Amino acid sequence: MKLDVTATLTYGFDSDTQVIAAIEAARSPDQTILSESLTISPDAVLVRDLHPETGERRFRAALSGQVEIRYRALVDNGNREPLSAAARQHDWSELPQEVLPYLLPSRFSPSDEFMRFAQREFCSIDGGGARILAVLDWLHEHLDYVHGVSHAQTTAQHTFIDRAGVCRDFTHLGIALTRALNIPARAVSAYALDLDPPDFHAVFEVYLDGRWWLVDPTRLAPVEGMVRIATGRDAADIAFLTSQFNCQCLAQTIKVSRAPEDAGLQAA
Amino acid sequence: MKLDVTATLTYGFDSDTQVIAAIEAARSPDQTILSESLTISPDAVLVRDLHPETGERRFRAALSGQVEIRYRALVDNGNREPLSAAARQHDWSELPQEVLPYLLPSRFSPSDEFMRFAQREFCSIDGGGARILAVLDWLHEHLDYVHGVSHAQTTAQHTFIDRAGVCRDFTHLGIALTRALNIPARAVSAYALDLDPPDFHAVFEVYLDGRWWLVDPTRLAPVEGMVRIATGRDAADIAFLTSQFNCQCLAQTIKVSRAPEDAGLQAA
Amino acid sequence: MKLDVTATLTYGFDSDTQVIAAIEAARSPDQTILSESLTISPDAVLVRDLHPETGERRFRAALSGQVEIRYRALVDNGNREPLSAAARQHDWSELPQEVLPYLLPSRFSPSDEFMRFAQREFCSIDGGGARILAVLDWLHEHLDYVHGVSHAQTTAQHTFIDRAGVCRDFTHLGIALTRALNIPARAVSAYALDLDPPDFHAVFEVYLDGRWWLVDPTRLAPVEGMVRIATGRDAADIAFLTSQFNCQCLAQTIKVSRAPEDAGLQAA
Amino acid sequence: MKLDVTATLTYGFDSDTQVIAAIEAARSPDQTILSESLTISPDAVLVRDLHPETGERRFRAALSGQVEIRYRALVDNGNREPLSAAARQHDWSELPQEVLPYLLPSRFSPSDEFMRFAQREFCSIDGGGARILAVLDWLHEHLDYVHGVSHAQTTAQHTFIDRAGVCRDFTHLGIALTRALNIPARAVSAYALDLDPPDFHAVFEVYLDGRWWLVDPTRLAPVEGMVRIATGRDAADIAFLTSQFNCQCLAQTIKVSRAPEDAGLQAA
Repeated sequence: MKLDVTATLTYGFDSDTQVIAAIEAARSPDQTILSESLTISPDAVLVRDLHPETGERRFRAALSGQVEIRYRALVDNGNREPLSAAARQHDWSELPQEVLPYLLPSRFSPSDEFMRFAQREFCSIDGGGARILAVLDWLHEHLDYVHGVSHAQTTAQHTFIDRAGVCRDFTHLGIALTRALNIPARAVSAYALDLDPPDFHAVFEVYLDGRWWLVDPTRLAPVEGMVRIATGRDAADIAFLTSQFNCQCLAQTIKVSRAPEDAGLQAA
Repeated sequence: MKLDVTATLTYGFDSDTQVIAAIEAARSPDQTILSESLTISPDAVLVRDLHPETGERRFRAALSGQVEIRYRALVDNGNREPLSAAARQHDWSELPQEVLPYLLPSRFSPSDEFMRFAQREFCSIDGGGARILAVLDWLHEHLDYVHGVSHAQTTAQHTFIDRAGVCRDFTHLGIALTRALNIPARAVSAYALDLDPPDFHAVFEVYLDGRWWLVDPTRLAPVEGMVRIATGRDAADIAFLTSQFNCQCLAQTIKVSRAPEDAGLQAA
Repeated sequence: MKLDVTATLTYGFDSDTQVIAAIEAARSPDQTILSESLTISPDAVLVRDLHPETGERRFRAALSGQVEIRYRALVDNGNREPLSAAARQHDWSELPQEVLPYLLPSRFSPSDEFMRFAQREFCSIDGGGARILAVLDWLHEHLDYVHGVSHAQTTAQHTFIDRAGVCRDFTHLGIALTRALNIPARAVSAYALDLDPPDFHAVFEVYLDGRWWLVDPTRLAPVEGMVRIATGRDAADIAFLTSQFNCQCLAQTIKVSRAPEDAGLQAA
Repeated sequence: MKLDVTATLTYGFDSDTQVIAAIEAARSPDQTILSESLTISPDAVLVRDLHPETGERRFRAALSGQVEIRYRALVDNGNREPLSAAARQHDWSELPQEVLPYLLPSRFSPSDEFMRFAQREFCSIDGGGARILAVLDWLHEHLDYVHGVSHAQTTAQHTFIDRAGVCRDFTHLGIALTRALNIPARAVSAYALDLDPPDFHAVFEVYLDGRWWLVDPTRLAPVEGMVRIATGRDAADIAFLTSQFNCQCLAQTIKVSRAPEDAGLQAA
């Protein structure tokens, strides 16, 4: 599917605040960036990062005062396959080395605390893919999507008790339960078609049968309509803006629309 | 039922450590103390407290070195009725004033965090008693009784996630869920028949239909065979020993046995 | 000092929401209520509670829709003495029985976690009053008064780390440190002269030398200008409004002013 | 310095438990492995991992029953320079891309919670190296080295409040405070000379002036006498043994001794 993405962020910064931004579509094998532009007003010196393994990109800058960051991209996200119930779970010794960190507990997804619950609830289900589909069903059945009950420090434990949250919270609990089943899981930030209201989206990936599979625990957007930005252990790693000091969000607009299948050809 | 209770506690204290002990059977309306003795070796000056409402008793002392506290009592605990499914839930305005604090969240039973879960899980069940019986069934089904997975600072949130604990943990989660249903609940320490291994037991009471009902969320001991000691918001209030500084438990033996129905008559 | 207090609270409730309100000045020995009025619009059936020991008052009601609660009182709060450095610390065995619960950790003031810090920081100071004055100096020096960094579930631990908060947070940390020094402490809600902006105030009391002493860890209002409402282990016990379900605060106005010394005589 | 390291670990595993072990000395640029041997009894199939950037090594295996893992190495750890007060702090934009994750909060070192404290306490000190030396002095002055007050889930927040812990806890708080000053920090596991009793040691590294500097916040072992094993965001990443299910430590012996300067030549 071809997707047209626009993000416009206006922030207020104290003088010379160092920031790291992850808002550009990843140059990952599963999506192709047909065209894109990034503009900062007023202009700023950018240090650009490209992760050699995942293709995710970040830029660094020292920003002052009111700054508008505008990113636009036309992305072909190929043909995302939904998670198959038949996808096989690996023994740890079969996993690629770079996947191992995603087996471990992290701050917002402390999977070690959920071992007993995950074993009790999901271990009767056979096979990796089917097990994760059961986790996703459990999340859908037991959590309410509610704004205002969580914040940037909310952990999977809190969400498990409170039974409510937003995409970030669904994702953290999903990751914790997946890792508690000894299956690697990582957080993914994305632009998503059909998200209402449009916003950055937080979803996750599980590693089964030799590859990562993207899943949306909120069921608010189809995985076929997602453009990946960054990946990490949990939300702390994939923040779209990390700043040295507090900064103020003045405005933020995200637009994602389906582009015609021949889009981008003229631009080439 | 008539019960013969013996508790022998040997502790090591730094010089002149102030302590508060709650090990004597309560002089509560639902049980009669037929005879009892309390000895401290070496001897110590005791300040004795009797709570005017609940009849629970504590003693205070300044203890030094190795001290043996020995309590023995013959108690007739009357005829404890098990919680009735038909017991009616009160509106807050009908409750006696002294019951109101047991509606509130406390440190180990922060019921405010469980509101959504309790509503979702138990609100379809009609009536107070039936609702609490459903809570007890839920605890029985979802928690494992396991030593060593919890400690003195473990909260109901942790137990809810970890799905395991000891009597104290079952009680804290039971209290939290009960209060989250707007029903008063309080922690009770007790001597219990048939507890294996014998130990102080932590159970709780719910207020329905104009009275407190004793329940054991672990199902390890029959409520008919319990001798009440102290009551409080949660375990912090009913500790059998609170001491100003750390102290060392050197030995502790609890014995509870059924006494013949004519026991205590000679002693009278 | 004579103080004229007016509180006007407008809330939105779901149908028949049970509430407990603690907004009336306490009939405690240290203050005299010269005149007062409480009006609820629309009218509601109230259950009135008076605590036999502390003189604090609460009312219970089942409220629906938009409700205005208006309380006005003229109170003579006598002559509050500031905490004396010479006030003597009691051994536990000297304390009145009803003071003992205020030695124990509570949810927002878990004093057991602060034992080592309190001993290290304050134990070189001799005497109860001087020690608490040192605690108050420490709070003043190390905490910033900042809105928006804490919420209703914030604990003393968080405030100790974050080094910022509002009156409730200063009070919780002050109580935790006091209890960690083996001195009883309890939370107090109050109307306070000179508080800017005017609001319910949270302060605390310490028990030394045979009596409770009121202190304001924020130093935002003089203790001589306070009218006591309720007391408890921490903020959970002294909430001005506890409701069965979520409710919405639509407006809230507090006014406290000094009344002329002859005020209230005509009313008598 | 040349160091002779022996680690012998005996564990009990359920049948076919997958494990990841990080006990081999890292092939990092700052140390040379002159000779080494790794034996597992009974024998097991090992998958060996070498991290391309840090040179750290792990092995994976499926283990059953009682297993002895024995590692011996002769390592020349070169000439570790102690942290210089003059070491310069970098702007974020100057940092190598792979260093950026070590600016972020992690589970046991949630630096975002310590921002205000770190700014208040250390920001008057000029320059990166001097600032970190002040952090190390603060840890030395305010924390007690005490066994038994912390466990595998203890966070820097708990240690900051409790003012006591072991090497892991000192390291977590040191990392949190360093990151709160906008300086990258990472956890390091090591074999350490002079550690009493001998054990795996947890220390940390700070990134200043274009390189990582190793520091020991416990001051229990000289950095010159350390052999690096693994690095990570916090202790979760550098565990010497991560296992799929609970396993039982039956025995563990670590020996580190200084080898003569001509050691290893014969072995070559």
